[in-house]
Formats: sequence, structure tokens, C-alpha cells
Amino acid sequence: AKAAVFSGTASESVGNDDVEVAAGKSIYMVSDGTGWTVEHSVTAALGQFDYCLVDRGCPVNTHLFSGIDDVERLMEIVKQAAKEGAMVVYTLADPSMAASAKQACKLWGIPSTDMLGPITDSIASHLGVSPSGLPRGAPGRNFPLSDDYFKRIEAIEFTIKQDDGALPQNLRKADIVLAGVSRTGKTPLSIYLAQKGYKVANVPIVMGVELPRTLFEVDPEKVFGLTINPVVLQTIRRARAKTLGFSEEVRSNYSEMDYVREELEFARTVFSQNPVWPVIEVTGKAIEETAAVVLRLYHDRRNRCLMPRISKRY
Amino acid sequence: AKAAVFSGTASESVGNDDVEVAAGKSIYMVSDGTGWTVEHSVTAALGQFDYCLVDRGCPVNTHLFSGIDDVERLMEIVKQAAKEGAMVVYTLADPSMAASAKQACKLWGIPSTDMLGPITDSIASHLGVSPSGLPRGAPGRNFPLSDDYFKRIEAIEFTIKQDDGALPQNLRKADIVLAGVSRTGKTPLSIYLAQKGYKVANVPIVMGVELPRTLFEVDPEKVFGLTINPVVLQTIRRARAKTLGFSEEVRSNYSEMDYVREELEFARTVFSQNPVWPVIEVTGKAIEETAAVVLRLYHDRRNRCLMPRISKRY
Ligand SMILES: Nc1ncnc2c1ncn2[C@@H]1O[C@H](COP(=O)(O)O)[C@@H](O)[C@H]1O
Ligand SMILES: Nc1ncnc2c1ncn2[C@@H]1O[C@H](COP(=O)(O)O)[C@@H](O)[C@H]1O
Ligand SMILES: [Mg+2]
Ligand SMILES: [Mg+2]
Repeated sequence: AKAAVFSGTASESVGNDDVEVAAGKSIYMVSDGTGWTVEHSVTAALGQFDYCLVDRGCPVNTHLFSGIDDVERLMEIVKQAAKEGAMVVYTLADPSMAASAKQACKLWGIPSTDMLGPITDSIASHLGVSPSGLPRGAPGRNFPLSDDYFKRIEAIEFTIKQDDGALPQNLRKADIVLAGVSRTGKTPLSIYLAQKGYKVANVPIVMGVELPRTLFEVDPEKVFGLTINPVVLQTIRRARAKTLGFSEEVRSNYSEMDYVREELEFARTVFSQNPVWPVIEVTGKAIEETAAVVLRLYHDRRNRCLMPRISKRY
Repeated sequence: AKAAVFSGTASESVGNDDVEVAAGKSIYMVSDGTGWTVEHSVTAALGQFDYCLVDRGCPVNTHLFSGIDDVERLMEIVKQAAKEGAMVVYTLADPSMAASAKQACKLWGIPSTDMLGPITDSIASHLGVSPSGLPRGAPGRNFPLSDDYFKRIEAIEFTIKQDDGALPQNLRKADIVLAGVSRTGKTPLSIYLAQKGYKVANVPIVMGVELPRTLFEVDPEKVFGLTINPVVLQTIRRARAKTLGFSEEVRSNYSEMDYVREELEFARTVFSQNPVWPVIEVTGKAIEETAAVVLRLYHDRRNRCLMPRISKRY
């Protein structure tokens, strides 16, 4: 729900952080780094318990402790977890810190899981080299200003500028172009992909508004159409219209069922006139799920190999 | 390097995907979902081998296979991994799929690691309930359009609109306001935080340009200053000036050492006049590392509890 950006069952404490820790079981997540890895893993695992989380009377509270690189603070946290009856999940690069966490949890009789040790050991023996044992923020380690780093930042800046059909003359510079009617998730999807290093432009399809000529001039293999179930779209648009405080008149046009259906039909026509564009159904998908589909197709089209994959080199 | 958005040692295959799989060891990552969880975990673990990756003659190739929810494709992938001498790391929610992966890897004599099973089992016994065993895309499962989901999308849309000092009249609506000179990473940091559900505005500090009045009118507890080592900043600005094709004259002003130092000095003065704003050193930090520092302080200030933490409810 959280690190994966959007799966979205968690109710985060933005704006009001004073989570009552009273009801529900607790999970303590501890990292010597940012904590985003352990949070991501715990969130994915919690997906297996969706059926009994907050809506079903079995709420879970997670607590993330980041930058824990000394044993004193680690022990404080374990002690507090014991008090609260919490379990502890950790990523600690220094083997002696990981051992301390394990031992202390055992001593206090609380369950614990090491999310970094097993995968690190397994990679170490595969590569035939030893892990450094250094946390990411350790003194002496240096964050490299690689080409890759600059490329990612450029991708984000490009994508922001291209949001919502802006600067259509730049479409040819994009790696990926998304087209769809309002509220199909073009903006958050663009941003999600940009974070992964892709330059994305998104183009809204609005009934009665001409699409930019450049959309049909760029390589059609990089254009993706988004579509959505009309009933779901109406729900989303109603929420949107309320947030923006649209007047009753504009609102009904924007989120009225006939209009929604007609506009989706219009989009479908555009898509069918451009048969190379894949059309992705976003209904019922979290942003990161749609992103996975887009990137699978994107890499597949470039590699044309038997088993679609995304390959990287470290 | 990758799922964590920026740690940035991986050279991704955007634009040219035809990674030569010849040199280096391979890691196959397999998920019935998006694959972002296993990718994130493997990337974090690879940080332990930074010292011997591509620059040091021990390159690693990762291959991500997402949406693998039938045993036939799973077996194909394991077979291919065996051919390539790759190890396999997987997140498979269906216990019989996970068992098949484990068994097949054993049969083919290749190392494998289950990234989902252990944490799921451990949470199951902590909560005293059973995991559903259903992958995130399984039929019958439905992605909830929760308040949280809409809030995240709103945060992204807000943050995009507020980039680079735009619409200063909206600063009071932001959860977090970032201030710093050009190329301190305000934009990617804002976007990273927005993905996590925070409405972020960023305000550039430029020598000789007056800052918006609203910056000093909003709650100073939500404003964060960014600072950076002048030599590193100059390197980043030079790269930037080249990308943007600045003329020689503008470039020297923007990235000349005297100017860089003076502008950082100017920012420091602004910060010292606003002593409530924490000043965060971004030198040597990946975007997600700076994000962790910002959010630690942000939640700490709201909770004022002994052990800084970020708490959520599922
Ligand atoms: N680039 C890196 N170098 C070394 N260790 C890392 C790196 N990235 C992540 N880690 C480690 O992986 C674990 C998870 O990182 P994080 O997601 O920042 O909590 C922590 O133990 C970090 O110290
Ligand atoms: N909301 C969810 N419900 C059920 N399973 C999930 C959920 N999110 C992630 N998972 C599972 O967690 C693992 C990692 O997910 P992913 O990051 O999408 O590859 C996969 O086995 C998914 O099926
Ligand atoms: Mg949009
Ligand atoms: Mg910027």
C-alpha cells in the first residue's frame, strides 16, 4: 500500500500523526538506511491479509524506524516492541547489528524477521564475493553522481513539463506517451514511470478537442492508450468534481453517465484508428500495476524475446 | 539502485534494451505481481556488493519477470535461469507456486530465495490469521478506490503544480515546503515525497531574487532548507548547463565557483533568519535518503515522541 506508492489500503498519518496505538497488532520495521525496503516488503506481505485488516476488525499498525545504526537505539526499539507486543522486521547491513536484533528479540520473546540477511547471503554465494556489511549511509561510502542518476532527474523534470498535454512539440523526445480521457490516471502513472527513469508525456483525450498532430507523428510503438470502466470512471470523476468545486453544470457534463460513455467511445475510436497502440485497461489496477503492464510491453517490443523481461546491469 | 528510485548504480536499458547478457552473473527476479517488491529488495542487497559491481569488473545482470501466475511460465523461467547459470529470487503469493519454484530450482541445481514466504508466515503467526494465498492481480480481488488513494493522487497533482516556486499563494496548502538553491534536488525530492502522499511545494532560492512573502507566513515547522557542498553543486550545475545548452556567459555565472559559493552563502543567511527551518545537507545522499531525513523530522515534530517513527494503520 505504501512503499509501492499506491496500493493504498493504508491510512497514513499525514497531517495527523497521533495514531492511537491502542487497537490492533503492531509491526516494528527497523532499518539502518531509509527503511523504504522493509516498508515495501511488509506492505506487500500485508496484501495477503487484506481480507482482515482495518475494515474487517483486524487492524495492523506499522511503525518505521529509519537510520538506526547503533546498538543502543536498536535495543531501545526492541524493548519498546516487547512492551507493545509488536513483532520486529529489520534490514541491518552490519552483521553484528543484525545478530543483536535477532538475539534481543529472542530474549524478549518477540517474533522477528530479517529481510536483508538471507537475500544478501544468497547473492554473496552466487557471486562468490562477500557483502561489505556497510549500511548505505556509512562514513566512507559515497553516493555516486552517475549518468544514470542525472538521467532519472531529467526524466522527472521532462515528465512534469509534459503533463496534461503540455508542449506537444516535445512528444518525440518522450520514451513513452500515454493517451486517455480525464481521470484514467495518466498523471500519477507518468510520474511513477518517470521515477524509474523513463521520459513520459501524457496527452488527454477530450471529446470535441482536437488531438495534437505530433501524437500521430511519433513512433506509434511508444504510445499507450488507457481505458477504464465507465461506472468506475464516473465514481472517480464525481470525487474529482467535488474536490475541485466544479459548478453543478460543469460537473454533470464531466461526470454524467451519458457523457462519460460517449467520451470513452470517442477514445476507443481514436485507439482503433491507431492499432499499433496497445490499449491498457486500468480498472481495478493500482498505479504501480498499470506501470508494470506498460513497462512489460515497452521492453517486450524492444527485445522481441520469448520471455518478456526488464533487464538491467549493476 | 532502481526500485528505490535513485540509488542509481544500475544502468538501465531505457532506450536500448539489448543488454548483452554475456558478461557477469545473472539474477532472475520473478513475481506474480508487478515485481517491484523483489526488485527493491534485490537492489538494496546489491548495495552490499557495490565495491565489486560493474566498475570493478564484477557486473551483475538482473532480469525481472512480472505477472507470472501460472506454473508453465514459471518452469520456463527456471529452466532458462538454469541455462544461464542465474539465481532465482521470487515473490509468489500462491503457496503451491512458491513450492514449485523452490522445488524446480533445487532440481535444476540453482540457488533460489523466497522474498515473500518468510515475512508472510511470520506476520500470519503474529496476527493469528492465515494469508489469503492470492496474488494481487487475482480474479475476485478488487483494488479499492480508498480515500487514501485519492489523497495520493491529489498530492502528486498538487506537487507538480507547485514545482519551482510556482503559485506561491498555495504554500499554506502544502504539507511540506522545500527551499534551496538550484540543483539541490528540490524537484525529484518533492515528487518522491508526493508519491508517499505528502503535498509538497518547492521554492528556489536565487541570489538577487526576492523570496515569496508567503514562504515566511506559513508554519515554519513545515519548511525545510536544503544545502549542498559547493564543489559537488558546481559539478551538478555544469552537467545541467551542458544539457540545457546554456550559453558560455550564462553558464559561467550559473556554475562558476565564486557564484556558487556566494549563492550558497545567501541561502545560508536566509536559513539563519528562519531558525525553525531544519537545514538538510544533501551532499552524497540519494533522493530517497534525503526523503527519509525529511519525513523523520516531519513526523518527529508532530509526535514529539522519544523514538522518532512513521506510523501507519492498515
Ligand atoms: N547503496 C547501498 N549500499 C549499501 N547498503 C545499502 C544500499 N542501499 C540499501 N542498503 C542497505 O539495504 C537495507 C535497506 O535499505 P533502505 O531501503 O534504505 O532501508 C539497509 O540495511 C541499507 O543499509
Ligand atoms: N494488495 C495485495 N494483495 C495481495 N497480494 C499482494 C498485494 N500487493 C502485493 N502482493 C503480493 O506481494 C508480492 C509482491 O508484489 P509485487 O511488488 O507487485 O511484485 C506478490 O506476490 C504479490 O502478489
Ligand atoms: Mg492529469
Ligand atoms: Mg527544480
